[in-house]
Amino acid sequence: MGDARVSHAELLRFAVSVFSAMGMSADNAKVAADVLVWANLRGVDSHGVIRIPIYLREMKEGLYRPAGKPVMKQLLPATFQLDCNLAPGPVCMMQAAARAIELAETYGIGMGLVSDPTHLGALGRYAQWIAERGHAAMMFIAGLPLMSYHGAKGANSATSPIAIGIPAPGPEGAPLLLDMATGVASAGRIRQAALDGVRLPEGLAIDADGHPTTDPKKAATVLPLGGPKGSGLSLMFECLAGILAGSPIIVPRVNKRATRAPLQNAMVLVFNIKNFRGMDDYRSDIAELIATVKGLPRRDGFDELLLPGERGDREAKRRQRDGIPLAEGLYAELNKLAGEMGVEGLKG
Amino acid sequence: MGDARVSHAELLRFAVSVFSAMGMSADNAKVAADVLVWANLRGVDSHGVIRIPIYLREMKEGLYRPAGKPVMKQLLPATFQLDCNLAPGPVCMMQAAARAIELAETYGIGMGLVSDPTHLGALGRYAQWIAERGHAAMMFIAGLPLMSYHGAKGANSATSPIAIGIPAPGPEGAPLLLDMATGVASAGRIRQAALDGVRLPEGLAIDADGHPTTDPKKAATVLPLGGPKGSGLSLMFECLAGILAGSPIIVPRVNKRATRAPLQNAMVLVFNIKNFRGMDDYRSDIAELIATVKGLPRRDGFDELLLPGERGDREAKRRQRDGIPLAEGLYAELNKLAGEMGVEGLKG
Repeated sequence: MGDARVSHAELLRFAVSVFSAMGMSADNAKVAADVLVWANLRGVDSHGVIRIPIYLREMKEGLYRPAGKPVMKQLLPATFQLDCNLAPGPVCMMQAAARAIELAETYGIGMGLVSDPTHLGALGRYAQWIAERGHAAMMFIAGLPLMSYHGAKGANSATSPIAIGIPAPGPEGAPLLLDMATGVASAGRIRQAALDGVRLPEGLAIDADGHPTTDPKKAATVLPLGGPKGSGLSLMFECLAGILAGSPIIVPRVNKRATRAPLQNAMVLVFNIKNFRGMDDYRSDIAELIATVKGLPRRDGFDELLLPGERGDREAKRRQRDGIPLAEGLYAELNKLAGEMGVEGLKG
Repeated sequence: MGDARVSHAELLRFAVSVFSAMGMSADNAKVAADVLVWANLRGVDSHGVIRIPIYLREMKEGLYRPAGKPVMKQLLPATFQLDCNLAPGPVCMMQAAARAIELAETYGIGMGLVSDPTHLGALGRYAQWIAERGHAAMMFIAGLPLMSYHGAKGANSATSPIAIGIPAPGPEGAPLLLDMATGVASAGRIRQAALDGVRLPEGLAIDADGHPTTDPKKAATVLPLGGPKGSGLSLMFECLAGILAGSPIIVPRVNKRATRAPLQNAMVLVFNIKNFRGMDDYRSDIAELIATVKGLPRRDGFDELLLPGERGDREAKRRQRDGIPLAEGLYAELNKLAGEMGVEGLKG
């Protein structure tokens, strides 16, 4: 492995510098860098700084507006829509998360649609952020067609993720954090397997003719989680987050009709726990649930049972200590881009 | 097959009579019968009149209160909790669905928790009912431990379903209706395979020792959909619908500690579409999405691509015309119970 290792602080410093050089305000650059590097820290490298070159390319094509200002439209009292018009996804989502919390404090629930932002990054970051503030969160994305609808071939359905965050059982613990795609895997899994020269698991992908394959070079699309369940959920997220916001993705992209279709849309829901019961009682019941799950009898081959988010929490601790590995090619590419932008390169 | 066939009207007449004889008001008996027979009509027989003998047994044990009155607690403006105290599930859910619509009309979203009802029946019925009224619905259940948590053996996680309903594209169409368990299958699938004398598909179940099995007689529990995804969603539904309502199920049941733990809890969400955009525009975009999906290129072996709810809609038309098949044993059992209750038996 020719991987470089970069400290968390250094990767964050680098990402902030790049986003600032792209034209974001200092505050927004921090938000966008936090979301990206959070994914690297937790081992979700597909949603980390590997995206920076893509964002730069999108910016040149007019599809990423670093200084874009999302427009907040307050609707009926507990709801809003944030029209993003290609402002940076993390900036939009953090604004939506904060607004949904405010509404939940007044109305018991707060709900917002986030339409037409750039790539949102790892959805779990926002659910965790809300849970850290003592509220429960549910959110999902309506995304790009990179998956095959159940029974179909070709790219016509999104691996749109859903994320749910539940406040930690106590000051020492971490929130429960589920962040899952509606595909068997994310679409990036095929490219990663091809790069690594390994075969794909059975049931993950099909080729362009719709035949099952484990060869990442022949694989064209990932399959939906549980067949009609995964593609059904994904379709519903398009209806609930995309079409509801007047911002459809699947129809214009699959029919190749639009000059420019959105990249993503999202719905954010915040549940005000204190509206339903005392926070201490809630946390105490969550603690008992966690203890019960961790203590269940295990099947052969399982050393322990993991909670939603636990694997990422551990990887974050490890990488916080040992640094974040970056593939040699990515490390070089980022430093080349930094040079072109007049940004100080990565030290690792 | 020694199956009886009973018309939809006759099965509804029968179920109303039984529920009335159990002590429900005429209106409530109609609601409870509608939900049960709806499942039979759509081919989801596991959630249909097969449950009547179970409800009667629960009633004798004090776990089903036909005349129980759910208590509506209005919380912060857009939210409520319906404390059901073992009132009939369908009566509670229909009250919650109606209330959530009212709130969504005022606040843009309406959200409620339904705590401690009896069995709710097929969740899709309520999502469809809301969608028929021009609103989008999402709801999920926190249910009984009948599944194995990812990596665990034994019954310690629920196959808790999620249902989503989207209004029909036009007066001729049906709502999009997803109703899916978080298990690979519902727990009843094992018992049904044992009755039918067929083997289970690979990856559906494990035995009491946690080893994979396709033998329905050895199968002890179903596995979660997609491993950690299904058991993660299920755990989150326990946190969001059960524990949030102060009505946990998993901890007291798995630890066998409570004298009486709830059977189910649910969260109901209604989204006011007109709050976000014109209803005609919304329906028109849904129609385009449906047309696009139905026209996608298909894989070998797929004669057509089905939308969420489409299979059930077709089965309902077929059974509306040809009658609803009831297994011989169930038919006899229902008529025996009817005799004991002084209710006119099924004519089929």
